[in-house]
Amino acid sequence: MLPLEFIGKLSRESTTKILFCVADGLGGMPGGTNGITELEQAKTPNLDSIAPKSSMGLIHLVAPGITPGSGPGHLALFGYDPVKYLIGRGVLSAAGLGLEMQAGDVAARINFCTVDAKGLVTDRRAGRIPTETCVKLCEKLGAGVKIPGVAVTVKPEREHRAAVLFRGQGLNHAIADTDPQREGLAPLEPKALAPEAEKTAGVIREFLAQAAKILAPEKPANMVLLRGFDTPPHLPQFRDVFKLKAAAVAVYPMYRGLARLVGMEVVPPKGEAIADEVTTVESIWKDYDFVYLHIKKTDSYGEDGNRDAKVHVIEEMDAQMGRLMALKPDVFILTGDHSTPAALKAHSWHPSPLLLTSPTARTDGFARFTEGNCARGSLGSILGADLMPLALAHALRLDKYGA
Amino acid sequence: MLPLEFIGKLSRESTTKILFCVADGLGGMPGGTNGITELEQAKTPNLDSIAPKSSMGLIHLVAPGITPGSGPGHLALFGYDPVKYLIGRGVLSAAGLGLEMQAGDVAARINFCTVDAKGLVTDRRAGRIPTETCVKLCEKLGAGVKIPGVAVTVKPEREHRAAVLFRGQGLNHAIADTDPQREGLAPLEPKALAPEAEKTAGVIREFLAQAAKILAPEKPANMVLLRGFDTPPHLPQFRDVFKLKAAAVAVYPMYRGLARLVGMEVVPPKGEAIADEVTTVESIWKDYDFVYLHIKKTDSYGEDGNRDAKVHVIEEMDAQMGRLMALKPDVFILTGDHSTPAALKAHSWHPSPLLLTSPTARTDGFARFTEGNCARGSLGSILGADLMPLALAHALRLDKYGA
Repeated sequence: MLPLEFIGKLSRESTTKILFCVADGLGGMPGGTNGITELEQAKTPNLDSIAPKSSMGLIHLVAPGITPGSGPGHLALFGYDPVKYLIGRGVLSAAGLGLEMQAGDVAARINFCTVDAKGLVTDRRAGRIPTETCVKLCEKLGAGVKIPGVAVTVKPEREHRAAVLFRGQGLNHAIADTDPQREGLAPLEPKALAPEAEKTAGVIREFLAQAAKILAPEKPANMVLLRGFDTPPHLPQFRDVFKLKAAAVAVYPMYRGLARLVGMEVVPPKGEAIADEVTTVESIWKDYDFVYLHIKKTDSYGEDGNRDAKVHVIEEMDAQMGRLMALKPDVFILTGDHSTPAALKAHSWHPSPLLLTSPTARTDGFARFTEGNCARGSLGSILGADLMPLALAHALRLDKYGA
Repeated sequence: MLPLEFIGKLSRESTTKILFCVADGLGGMPGGTNGITELEQAKTPNLDSIAPKSSMGLIHLVAPGITPGSGPGHLALFGYDPVKYLIGRGVLSAAGLGLEMQAGDVAARINFCTVDAKGLVTDRRAGRIPTETCVKLCEKLGAGVKIPGVAVTVKPEREHRAAVLFRGQGLNHAIADTDPQREGLAPLEPKALAPEAEKTAGVIREFLAQAAKILAPEKPANMVLLRGFDTPPHLPQFRDVFKLKAAAVAVYPMYRGLARLVGMEVVPPKGEAIADEVTTVESIWKDYDFVYLHIKKTDSYGEDGNRDAKVHVIEEMDAQMGRLMALKPDVFILTGDHSTPAALKAHSWHPSPLLLTSPTARTDGFARFTEGNCARGSLGSILGADLMPLALAHALRLDKYGA
């Protein structure tokens, strides 16, 4: 894997376009009655017609044997060393909610909770309040909290979940979670985990004290728990490093957040179905060099252990391939940010199958896009962060290195 | 990729011999009437007989997606990290012309040019003077220029092209080109691009002033333009790192220069045809542990987009395989320093096919040496600099690492 500065020196502007399709958790494991993977089981007539004209390979997103979370998996796909650039949950949530972050900001996740008269937590999720209530409470907190020299932004997510962003001089994210992790205990102190975070710990204590007063009249959400304190990493931006004007089409906030952090413009899809997302891709295709399309349900059903449903999502995705190919991308990529075999009901370390279609690609001639054929493909076994240089190369967007 | 110091500690003397054949730009892309690569199209009965007994693999010379110039491609094949060791044009040219360089030397390319009475450039190539004229002018410059404390060597290349080497204490290569890049302008000042190059800038100014006087009576080449100032990298030498007495058989100067930089002895071939080069390999085979044989025309025809001619060169090379095998190398390697698909008329990022034949190799059993079979080969997808350790290993020239 090469440093981004290296790629940045070779990348160049061009009119070519890259369609970068990530089917979350796409890779699988043998299972079902005939011991084949989800991808092998799915009926994919459209992918079958693309497969012989494509290059295939396998991607170890982080390194062989490492199971990536969605953050590292995606950062690797986007070309960033996932070991060097680790993004915490707080920043992922905040970014996913559209909070614009700057270097030095500190973000955390909020859970609205219920505390009793003694201040002990009786419900860590405040009975999963409706999202509308969450919205109102966030507005109340945002308007009510006043900390000199620190701007506080509170943004609702869903139900009892929200995010908070602190902006001010000298803030640091090394702060312990306040969530006691079980009921019957008081919220924990926001302890500084490093000397340079003492000032921030004071800011968080003040925030919690004011929040307790502001929320006191509320039922059942009369307090907040904070966790995942984090500061946004400095991520070199897509436009600078890759010379790409990039857009992201994704249903789920976290993936939008990741895309925003690397400098993509987020375009909310017209609906939650894959077909709706593709409609959105079609509508913006002429305006961007690079479109990232995220398909979530392959992972969701894998995590549920629902093999048949995962197979069905792959088939649903396959049904949209004709529309995607009709856009005539100079480079079409289909892969996952990690595998999620239904047999494991979890993300896994198994390398992700990779398909790359381009007029400049070697054609492997395989009849189908499967994990097994990918293992024999001409792209070989690569690391996640090697994919973006490959995409740029096939789009003729990288200069030659050296004389 | 392991550091050379690591390999250097494991490598050992032996009587085994390695024949290292680089067919420049060997790898290709689908094309022609039946959508196959140049290597697939070529009739290669001799390689076909070697293939089943060989190991195969694919080489990403620098990294996936990176298109290497000949310099980085070759350095990687020779075992050097091509990102760590980058060689500039000036040094490549000088090395190719057989100029012996030392650490601290500064080399640059010369273009003889024509200037008018006001000193403005009227022809940047001096009407492409004949090479004999270039030879005479270089002798005149070399004999005439006198700079205290600095030895100046001028060597002709072809037509208006030459190279110059400056040797002295405290020289630095951070000097701007003097070529104004278009006619009607005066040559540029040789500006120091870093404070530590100020002294060198003075030396170059003095060189240019004397050159102007010495060349004043000449027509049309009455001045020089300098570009590509560069200093030779410190490259660990083949004998020290790999314990190999190595020779290079190559027709083109640049490849000889590269080989010289890593410590190979250059043996000019008896003629320009592949058969002539093989005759030279035969004649020196008993004297060396390692012979690098460079075949250029696979790349040249690829760059021309002349698919059939590239196929023909591969067939011409195949015809010499019997003679090469008759030398009974302990390890025979055939690969390229990058791909040059005729379809792209340029170097490309596609990994290079690799064939390794040795009594100690696993035998993949493939019927032919093709990019597709290489993708399924037992050597896997490796980086360029991983090849030399593999070559040494198969030659039983590497000790076990650790107890």
